[in-house]
Parts: sequence; structure tokens; C-alpha cells
Amino acid sequence: MPEAQRDVEVVRVRAGARTSDRDCAATEEPLEIRLHDRPFAVIMRTPGADRELAAGFLLAERVLNSADDLGTIAYCADGENIVNVTLTGASATHLERLLAGRRQVTTSSSCGLCGRQTIDSLAADAAPIAARWTVAADTIAALPRGLRVRQAVFDDTGGLHAAGLFSRDGTLLDVAEDVGRHNAVDKIVGRMLMRDGLPLSDCMLCVSGRTSFEIVQKAWRAGIALVAAVSAPSTLAIELAQTLGVTLIGFVRGDAFNIYAHAERIEP
Amino acid sequence: MPEAQRDVEVVRVRAGARTSDRDCAATEEPLEIRLHDRPFAVIMRTPGADRELAAGFLLAERVLNSADDLGTIAYCADGENIVNVTLTGASATHLERLLAGRRQVTTSSSCGLCGRQTIDSLAADAAPIAARWTVAADTIAALPRGLRVRQAVFDDTGGLHAAGLFSRDGTLLDVAEDVGRHNAVDKIVGRMLMRDGLPLSDCMLCVSGRTSFEIVQKAWRAGIALVAAVSAPSTLAIELAQTLGVTLIGFVRGDAFNIYAHAERIEP
Repeated sequence: MPEAQRDVEVVRVRAGARTSDRDCAATEEPLEIRLHDRPFAVIMRTPGADRELAAGFLLAERVLNSADDLGTIAYCADGENIVNVTLTGASATHLERLLAGRRQVTTSSSCGLCGRQTIDSLAADAAPIAARWTVAADTIAALPRGLRVRQAVFDDTGGLHAAGLFSRDGTLLDVAEDVGRHNAVDKIVGRMLMRDGLPLSDCMLCVSGRTSFEIVQKAWRAGIALVAAVSAPSTLAIELAQTLGVTLIGFVRGDAFNIYAHAERIEP
Repeated sequence: MPEAQRDVEVVRVRAGARTSDRDCAATEEPLEIRLHDRPFAVIMRTPGADRELAAGFLLAERVLNSADDLGTIAYCADGENIVNVTLTGASATHLERLLAGRRQVTTSSSCGLCGRQTIDSLAADAAPIAARWTVAADTIAALPRGLRVRQAVFDDTGGLHAAGLFSRDGTLLDVAEDVGRHNAVDKIVGRMLMRDGLPLSDCMLCVSGRTSFEIVQKAWRAGIALVAAVSAPSTLAIELAQTLGVTLIGFVRGDAFNIYAHAERIEP
């Protein structure tokens, strides 16, 4: 089974000085859940307690109602990111209905069975982002402050993720807030699409939370060459950014931040 | 359109003293996206920029590839939480394939078209949690500290959500970490299911982040009577907790926290 965390390479920037270092990132990998050997769902997760995750997920989804419904949960020989579940009792008799009625997780539509396959399938049908501009470290460090002053609903509720679109000189072009971090990015990208403003090759995206696979994938679809986040990236976000030509920055705090992919866009 | 935030009633507890007050919570409601009047996906989101959200979502999902593919995006007369999208050009000719191949968002399987319907459909087929025990305010205030000391991977990566299962006296029974906050809850519940330990009527759940609709729904499926979170709840999480008999607590920090539903389980 993959580890829950992995060593990654990072360029640390602090008060303008750069050092190459190792860092540790939380692993994000797809887990496929099968019912009686047939695909049921794919979940992006951190490896560990995969059988438990499958059992809890199936309870919440009403496939299982109690321990009596659960036959076996085992890793498949096909791969380390696949768990097969068998049902007993009433659930088993409803299996055909469950599989027919079942619709897969949104984010899984482009997912393979491991992170590598996922990235390869994304990278196969489109070119990496080739934008060659650079930006000053000071401009990156200022992005969260620029975002924060426009987080209107967050101030009242403390309950929202925010995403901001910035020009290369650090001017805030648009901001969106949502309980779902992916939604905030979709709102910004969607607004520019509706204005026929894509690709956003000259823009930077700043998000208030962590960066997952999906945030990088959504930025790349919009042509955005740089994603900066206040918190940590996942392993899959880093790998995807490296493959797709997206500069990925995390832990932007004060005058410091970490670069996880394509550091060439940050001026030395 | 619903507001992005709403007034909610809250019981504020600080150093043992309680005051009833009003608070402001971020709105969470389902948005149904239709393609040519046919259901395509349901997303839990904060109302606002819904048409932009739909456009951005469809770009990321590869339904749209550019503004040229987009015909119209408009609210449906059927309801304020439904947006209908029409496609033009190459995308329109692929519509049948898109709809056939499309599988709905996981979390939407039990979603109606507005929060009220969602809650009613969940509440219709199961009784609210009836556990009548109470817990001291001090025990609640200590939960995040109990969780924090066991967040092994978070310490290394800063990139994980955590969920902890506690007994009524505040003893930590189990902990799980994951890049997905829902997964951490599924892992804990699934482990207890596999041990035939459900329902968890005598247990409390503490989560490291915000509480959404899904966290409360997953706790309720496991019979958990109390959910405490370090950050804010959404409006739908609050409404669902009220309906399903779950005590919902947010902003547990220091000796203070807010109770958003079923305050009767917290000792005065």
C-alpha cells in the first residue's frame, strides 16, 4: 500500500532567498471501490485504512445498513488502489439495482486506478502550459493579503473557501467564495469562460486552503500557469502540476512560501 | 436566489457560561446542473455566481472546451437551485454520449433540489437520534486537543483533515487522517462497522475543519449523537443536525465553543 505521506522536492523562498530542500506532502491517490468485482465508485483519498474507508463510504451511501450486510472487504490482485466488497443478506439481493442506479463520483470521471495513470490520462490529450513569463517573489507573497481583503462572507461566517484570480503584477481581477473549495475555482474560471476570456495564460490563481489534484486540474483546463495556496499541496497536486506545466506554490505566509513545481516562473 | 450567508441561532459557551445569540453561517445548498433540460449533476455549493459555477464545472468536466461550445446558461423556472445549460457546436453533437456516460456526484445521490427537500428525504426514512445523555462543557472544549496530539501525518505535512471518535468522558477511541475530510469520517465509521460496533450512540465525533451537510449525514448514519468541529458549520449542516437529532458544535477553541443544534446534550 502507498504511504500516507511522501518526500517531495521543494524550493523554499524566504525574504527573497531561495533554498532547495526536501519536504513531506500528504499522499492523495484514487481508491476504486468494487462491489462483487464490478466498479462502483472512485474516491480520492490518502492511503491507509482503505477497507475501513470503503465500509464507511458504503454505509453513508446506504449500500450497507449494518455489519450484517457486509461479507468481505479485500484488496484486489489487480492493484493496490482497488478494494472489492461483497455483500450478504438483503444488500446482496439488491446488488443489481445498486449497480444500475449508481453513478460515479464526479472527480473520478478522469481517474485511473493510480495517481500515475490519472496523470498520464490527463496529460495524454493536451499540451502542458507553456507560458514563459516570470513573477517576483514579493508579488507571490502578497497574494493572500489581496485575496483576504475581498473575502466578504468569510469575515461574517468563517465558513468559506476563497479563490482569487490575479494578473501577473498582482492585481486582483476576480474573487469567489464557496463552501466547496473546487466551486470557488469553478466560479472564477466559469466567469472568464462566459466572457470568452480563456485561456488565462497571463493569470495567477490564489486559493485560501490546500491544493488537491482537482484544483490543479481545473486551473490547467483554464490555461492558468501558476497556482498559489495558503496551505499544503497533496502529492497528486504536485505531480500533476509538474506534468502539466503549472507552477505550484504552497504555504504562502508572510514573506515566505514553498515552490513545489515549475519554480522557473519565480524570479530568483 | 438564496443568500450566501444566513442568520442562525447559536448558544455561545465560554468558560462555562452560556448565552443565546444570533450568528451568521455560510449557506450550503444543492445546485442541479441540467444539459438541454436533462439532469447532469448536482453540486453542493454556496449560492451566488451559479451560472459561472456551472460553466466552470462543465469546462473542468470536459463537457465544454471553450466559449464557442456554450449556448445559454439560465436558471430554470422549476426552481432557484437549477441551472440549465445548452451547448453549441461540437459539444452539442456529443450530448447523448455525454449524458449516457455521465455519472452523478456521489453526494448528490440523496439530494433533492433544495436544502429543505434534501433534509426531508433523509429524515423521512429514519428516526432522529434519540440518545439522552449529557456531557460537560469542559469535555467538549478538550476534544480538539485530544485529536491534535494524534494527528501524526498532519504534523509532517500540514495537509490532512482529521476526525476523532471519543467516548462521552472524552477518551479518544480512534482517529483517522485524510486529504478528504469526509474520508476521515468514513474511515472511523467503517472501522466500527467492521467490528460490528454500530450504532455509536454513546460516542462523539470531532473533526479538524468545517462541517458540511455530508459530515452530519455520515455521523447520523453511524448513530453518532454529537459532532464538534474546530471551524464553522454550513447552513445545511445546521438544519440537518436539528432535524436528525444530532448535537452540532462549531468553533471549539480554548474554553469556548458554539452550539448550533440540540444544545440539550451540553450540561448547563
